Amino acid sequence: MTKDEYFMYLAIKEAEKALVLDEVPIGAVIVKDDIVISRAHNLRETLKDATAHAEIIAIKDACTKLLGWRLIGCSLYVTLEPCSMCAGAIVNSRIERVVFGAFDYKAGACGSVLNVAFNNSLNHRAQITSGILEEECRTLLQEFFKKKR
Amino acid sequence: MTKDEYFMYLAIKEAEKALVLDEVPIGAVIVKDDIVISRAHNLRETLKDATAHAEIIAIKDACTKLLGWRLIGCSLYVTLEPCSMCAGAIVNSRIERVVFGAFDYKAGACGSVLNVAFNNSLNHRAQITSGILEEECRTLLQEFFKKKR
Repeated sequence: MTKDEYFMYLAIKEAEKALVLDEVPIGAVIVKDDIVISRAHNLRETLKDATAHAEIIAIKDACTKLLGWRLIGCSLYVTLEPCSMCAGAIVNSRIERVVFGAFDYKAGACGSVLNVAFNNSLNHRAQITSGILEEECRTLLQEFFKKKR
Repeated sequence: MTKDEYFMYLAIKEAEKALVLDEVPIGAVIVKDDIVISRAHNLRETLKDATAHAEIIAIKDACTKLLGWRLIGCSLYVTLEPCSMCAGAIVNSRIERVVFGAFDYKAGACGSVLNVAFNNSLNHRAQITSGILEEECRTLLQEFFKKKR
């Protein structure tokens, strides 16, 4: 197991916590110097909050931990490609690297639908690595939506 | 004074609260059926939180007030064109209409740099009205940055 796979595995563990709450199973962890700074899962329905995506919660928590809004040198691992809101938060917080599992062909803003996270028109670009443990991340989501039908 | 100018004036009052805190002066209010549901100002430095833009705080608060993450029928008034994060939150929360004052040629995601808030590739589009009380909104920002130099 590579380092990226290990941290993505932790993000999957977070996604499974969302699943238990009947939330869309998406999880995220933020890592700095190989240390996990924050971990979070989607809580949109539980908190009745449109902004309560795993990434936003993880970013807010990491800012608290690091005592500042700049997450310099941090990597964010997330099971699904971030949407525009989350990709924008990644840019705003200066996260250095984003690693995601499954692609989001409906709303992904790291290349699939829009490109917010690595855009030369903005003042910060995050390095992007995609498809880490993709099948595990995707299967978790597919099983969730299959049961919802 | 038109209705749009009146609600933008309230957003400017919020921006002035940010100014007192030495925050970039940006304010927002969310309105439903002509009633102000939430009002907020930028608190990025105060809260040490990259996501603490006026719009995100106002959206979270409006979700709490309306007991759900869908802000159907709501309009968001904000003194500066929303960034990608905030425009993404506008899409995610299904806000019907966005009215902004000043244009953000560096990071605006309602047309100036990117187009997130009204994008046919995404599953929701907000109607956009721009330039309401533009000069007042812009002057507030320009004076702030002039003092910072």
